[in-house]
Amino acid sequence: MVVAIASPLEIEYVNQITAVDHKRVRVLFRPDLLPPRRYVADHTGPACWSRTPQQQREWEELLVQADILWDLPAGAKKPLLELCPKLKWVQTSSAGVGPQVQRAGLAETGVIVTTSSGIHAAPLAEFVFASLLFHTKRIAQLQDWQRERTWERYCAGELRGQTLLVVGPGRIGREVARIGKAFGMQVIAVGTSEDPGRRESLGVDEYVSRSGLDDALGQADCIVLCCPITPDTEAMIGWEQIAAMQPGVALVNIARGAVIDEEAMIEALQSGHIAFAALDVFQVEPLPKESPLWSMPNVLVNPHSASTAYAENARITEIFVANLKRFLDGKFVEMTPLLDKLRGY
Amino acid sequence: MVVAIASPLEIEYVNQITAVDHKRVRVLFRPDLLPPRRYVADHTGPACWSRTPQQQREWEELLVQADILWDLPAGAKKPLLELCPKLKWVQTSSAGVGPQVQRAGLAETGVIVTTSSGIHAAPLAEFVFASLLFHTKRIAQLQDWQRERTWERYCAGELRGQTLLVVGPGRIGREVARIGKAFGMQVIAVGTSEDPGRRESLGVDEYVSRSGLDDALGQADCIVLCCPITPDTEAMIGWEQIAAMQPGVALVNIARGAVIDEEAMIEALQSGHIAFAALDVFQVEPLPKESPLWSMPNVLVNPHSASTAYAENARITEIFVANLKRFLDGKFVEMTPLLDKLRGY
Repeated sequence: MVVAIASPLEIEYVNQITAVDHKRVRVLFRPDLLPPRRYVADHTGPACWSRTPQQQREWEELLVQADILWDLPAGAKKPLLELCPKLKWVQTSSAGVGPQVQRAGLAETGVIVTTSSGIHAAPLAEFVFASLLFHTKRIAQLQDWQRERTWERYCAGELRGQTLLVVGPGRIGREVARIGKAFGMQVIAVGTSEDPGRRESLGVDEYVSRSGLDDALGQADCIVLCCPITPDTEAMIGWEQIAAMQPGVALVNIARGAVIDEEAMIEALQSGHIAFAALDVFQVEPLPKESPLWSMPNVLVNPHSASTAYAENARITEIFVANLKRFLDGKFVEMTPLLDKLRGY
Repeated sequence: MVVAIASPLEIEYVNQITAVDHKRVRVLFRPDLLPPRRYVADHTGPACWSRTPQQQREWEELLVQADILWDLPAGAKKPLLELCPKLKWVQTSSAGVGPQVQRAGLAETGVIVTTSSGIHAAPLAEFVFASLLFHTKRIAQLQDWQRERTWERYCAGELRGQTLLVVGPGRIGREVARIGKAFGMQVIAVGTSEDPGRRESLGVDEYVSRSGLDDALGQADCIVLCCPITPDTEAMIGWEQIAAMQPGVALVNIARGAVIDEEAMIEALQSGHIAFAALDVFQVEPLPKESPLWSMPNVLVNPHSASTAYAENARITEIFVANLKRFLDGKFVEMTPLLDKLRGY
């Protein structure tokens, strides 16, 4: 079986993959044909980068041999099965890859797609609490006073006792809920399931299905959007839902920009109805220079990097190595986490 | 019994105290004789404030009747028992009041001193994680990029997997340790007890007594100082202890400024040996204008307010009301949390 490494990877992880089965696995790794990394665990490289015609030829000669892909190749201009006619399995480096898999023409094929669902839960949950604590403990105010060398005793809020609404209790949402409970917050989760037993299985104080969303929005002091993007969740938070929120609410969006109406959110941030927002995702990315979000004092902009952590490739390698063993043994049904091509995540 | 309210308090809490026993308790509350509040749960008022001679006379006439004090009166110039000759019990609004009780001349008297130990654990632990996440998730970098409208994908660290050293596993330290565990950190606690069973009772991964401090400092990625100030802990972290720390360590001091050698700490912050410090306490407070700490990019200065939370007076009232019932019933031994006048906390 030929494994082609299609996004930048540290040599130590390549070696771990090779070591799974020297006889049956051949790993094609040509870092010179991959985009340069802008940061640890960069999987796509800069938008301006491209291969020379010679590099592109060599790259395509490499892909054509692949049975297995480490990651969806960035910037491919042809359907993936034309580039990799022998392709049987792709391991992606992120979780919500429904749209990319669709664009690559794999949605209605038998190619197995395993994702990295789960590995971003810890860094994303940490970003959520970095944001909520930044707001609640009034860190921006401390920074202002520090710049002025002003010693001003003050009082801050507390997460303890606040109500946290987790929209989308998947692996990330469950991690957010768990840490929220550790901080003594009341946690409400909103999900797609109608099963009331979800409250207990999620370990939250209250569980509501989508029909209860507007009501739940009105109870929350802090709202975390961490649902996948699907036709159901697109534009799920519109003018009406924002109006239903409590004045002074704090919002964190680590889902996708299209989940919330950005214009309505900006207006609510300007009026203070939403007191604070930490945003990892936007309607258009990169966030356009002219967006008012950049200069709003009650907004923290993260360039869609909240999930990126130094340990990321180590964790994807762990998933990949386990799946490679299953794949070689023909235990395809045990491969996990599998992309549900219908749901798109 | 006469209760004198000796620091600013909301009328709703005064009413809760009065309601304990209308017949046996008389509450003296003269907000006009108390310092103005600079923020919610301010107990001392501004340093520049003083009573007029007339107000001071009325204030002393009030104190002389007190059997019980809500808080140590700020800025008293005479020993407390001269001002309150009938005094039997003081409820303080903070925890580490050994030095103030000493200065008030109560250390070697039979006056009961109950403290607010415990109520600051939640807000202080939240400040600790606000600080550690601010550093780990590189929020200052995000703020710089946001000011420049720069979309720069990046990679941040994680608390998960880091080693957290809690120096002083009292009520605050235990709360810090508990949340550290929830974030998936390895937690080491350093305390005064020699009992190895402390590891389990504290719920930490490792427990060491003071003799193991230097070694533990060398293992930590994050160090939180939250011990009381006693002759034992004064200057406990000197040049040698700072040198024992790992390069790149993050430090949070919510104990007292005198616990660490400030000059040595500043040098280590300048060289980057200590990568980041969040400081709620300082050798001299207010922190002098000329201190280099104000302008260091890797320092977050909190004006000794990390423990202050909106819910503070509600929590002290809860403690006070419970103790007042015990006091009225003569159940003095049940009053809690009691100041250990020998230990000073």
